[in-house]
Amino acid sequence: MEVKVGLFGFGNVGRAVARVLLEKERFFRERYGLSFRVVSISDTSGTVWLPEGIDLSEALLVKENFGKLSAWTNDYEVYNFSPVEAVKEIEADIVIDVTNDKNAHEWHLEALRDGKAVVTSNKPPLAFHYAELTDEAERRGLPYLFEATVMAGTPIIGLLRENLLGDTVRKIKAVLNATTTFILSRMEQGIDFEKAVRQAQELGIAERDPSGDVLGIDAGYKATILHCVAFKPITFDEIAVKGIAEVTVDEVKRALAKGKRIRLVATIEEKNVRVTPEEVSGPLTVSSNENVALIETDLLGELLVKGAGAGLKETASGVVSDLVKASLKLRAG
Amino acid sequence: MEVKVGLFGFGNVGRAVARVLLEKERFFRERYGLSFRVVSISDTSGTVWLPEGIDLSEALLVKENFGKLSAWTNDYEVYNFSPVEAVKEIEADIVIDVTNDKNAHEWHLEALRDGKAVVTSNKPPLAFHYAELTDEAERRGLPYLFEATVMAGTPIIGLLRENLLGDTVRKIKAVLNATTTFILSRMEQGIDFEKAVRQAQELGIAERDPSGDVLGIDAGYKATILHCVAFKPITFDEIAVKGIAEVTVDEVKRALAKGKRIRLVATIEEKNVRVTPEEVSGPLTVSSNENVALIETDLLGELLVKGAGAGLKETASGVVSDLVKASLKLRAG
Repeated sequence: MEVKVGLFGFGNVGRAVARVLLEKERFFRERYGLSFRVVSISDTSGTVWLPEGIDLSEALLVKENFGKLSAWTNDYEVYNFSPVEAVKEIEADIVIDVTNDKNAHEWHLEALRDGKAVVTSNKPPLAFHYAELTDEAERRGLPYLFEATVMAGTPIIGLLRENLLGDTVRKIKAVLNATTTFILSRMEQGIDFEKAVRQAQELGIAERDPSGDVLGIDAGYKATILHCVAFKPITFDEIAVKGIAEVTVDEVKRALAKGKRIRLVATIEEKNVRVTPEEVSGPLTVSSNENVALIETDLLGELLVKGAGAGLKETASGVVSDLVKASLKLRAG
Repeated sequence: MEVKVGLFGFGNVGRAVARVLLEKERFFRERYGLSFRVVSISDTSGTVWLPEGIDLSEALLVKENFGKLSAWTNDYEVYNFSPVEAVKEIEADIVIDVTNDKNAHEWHLEALRDGKAVVTSNKPPLAFHYAELTDEAERRGLPYLFEATVMAGTPIIGLLRENLLGDTVRKIKAVLNATTTFILSRMEQGIDFEKAVRQAQELGIAERDPSGDVLGIDAGYKATILHCVAFKPITFDEIAVKGIAEVTVDEVKRALAKGKRIRLVATIEEKNVRVTPEEVSGPLTVSSNENVALIETDLLGELLVKGAGAGLKETASGVVSDLVKASLKLRAG
C-alpha cells in the first residue's frame, strides 16, 4: 500500500524522520508492504507541495544548504499556506506534526475532520487539548498517535495506551527531561547552574531559551500526557510544576554524599500530577539522554521502562513507528 | 459489548484469570464497555459448559474445595470433550488457553478455523508452530495473542509486536526464567544446587519436576518466541540451550567476588538464539520474580524493560490484557 504523507516541520526532527523514510524505504516495503509518498513538506518559510511525491534527498540538501525550503525554486512550487489551509488543501492520508507550534491542535482537528490521520511529536496540543483531539479521532475512526511526545521513541505511550489493559495503574514515577538530567549531572561535578546551562546550550542539548526545560514545563507537558493516557484527560494547567532553577550545587553535593542524585521527577497519580526536583537512587537514577518510568499497577506490580528520552534518530523512531502503526490501521480499515 | 469466553485450564493461572474477571467486572464495563461471559471452563477432569454463562465464584469454590470441576454436579453438566471437540462445540468469541498442553497448537488452529480468537499463556504451541498459528490467524483476520507466554504480564510482546515499528532490532539480552534466578540467588548464599532446587519446590516456585526450568527449556521457549516476534519465525529445535544444572556454588561465589552474578541469560539475534548461564552486572542483575529484557535497535539504541516474570496475578495480567485487546479488535471489526 502506498501512503500519502504531509510532513509539517522540517527542523532537526523533521529531517531525521525524512532520513529514516529514505534510508529504510526497503525495510518498510518488505516488512509491512508499505511505501510512503511524502506529498508536502512545510517549514516556517513555506510549503513545498508535489502530489507525485517529493524527492526527500533533494529536500534535505536544500534545507541543509539554504536553511529554508522557500529557497527551492527550480522544480517545485513553494506555497504560503497557513497550517490549517495546508492540511485542508493537501491530499494526504497521514499528517505528521514535528513542529513546535503551540496552536497546532487547531490544524490537528482540521486534519481529522478532513479524514486525515495524525502523528505528532508536538506536546502542547496534547497537554492542553487531549480530550478534544482523541474524541474527534475516535468519532472519525482515525488514528491519532503521539508516541514521540514522551520519552522520544521509547514506547511508553503504546505501552500504556494499548497494553496493560487489564491493569489499573496506581502511580507512575518518571524522569522525562534529559536536559535537566544533563545540567544536574554537571552540577554533581561542581559546575554551577548557570554554567551547566551554558554548556548544555553549547552542546545543542538545551535550546537558546532554556526555560522550557529548566522550569519543568517540558517535563510537565509530558507528565500531563502520561496522566491522560494512564488515567483520565487533564490539562497542563491542573498540575504542579517546579523546575530546577533553584537547585544549588550544595544540594546536589549533599545528595551525592548520601549516595543519591537530584533529578527532575514527575509523579503521576490519578488527578494528582507533580513535577519537582527530588533525591533519587536506584532505577530512577538516569544519566545522559535516558528517560525512565516506573509504573505501579494492581496486577503486575512494578514495571520499569528505561530508554532514550531525547535525540534525533531516537525521536524519529517514535514518529516513524506511529506512521507505520497509523498506516496499518488505515489499511485494515 | 458482551464477549463470550471459553476458558481452557483451571489451575493456578486459570483461577487467577477468573478472579480478575470477577473482581474487575465493573472496571472492564466502565473503561472499555466490555463484559465477559465465561461460557465454558475446562480442566483435566472435564468441561463445564453453560451458554448463559458460568458463575465464576461458584466455579472457584468447587475447584478449590474438590480439586476438580467434575465434582460440580448440582446445576451444571460436565462434558468429556477433547480440547478439539470443545473448541468446536462451544460457542465462544475468544478461547483462552492457560493449560500446559504441549499439543495445544492443534486446538488453537481449530479455534481459528472456527472463527474464534485465541489468547494463550501456553508456550509450546508458539515455540514450535509460530508461523502456522500466526499465518492462520492473519488469514482469518482474528486476534492470536500471547503476551503472557514471555515475562508474564510485562508487555514485552506487545512492545515488540505492535510498537518500535520503524526500528530494526539488532539484539535482545534477557533473563526470562524466575525459578533459575531464585536458585542462583540461593547459591550466592552458599546453598548448594540440589538444596536450592528443593527450597524452590517447597515454596511452589519450582515444579515437582523442575527440569523445564533448570535445563533452560522454559527460557528457551521464551527466547524462541521473542525471536519470532522481533525477527522471523523459528522453532525451539533451532536454538542452543544450556541450563544451570552444572553451575557450582564455587562459580557463583567467584562471580560474586568480581561484583557479578550468574543468571540464565537468553541472547537473541537474527537466526541466532542461545540460552546459557552468564556472569552479569548492571541492568541484567534481576532478583526475585523479576525478568528483564535489554533491546538494542538501530534508531532508539538501548531499551530496558524490567518487570514481573512470574506469579499468578502477574501472569493473569497478561492474559486479561490480551482478552481486552482481542475484544476491542473484534468490536472494531
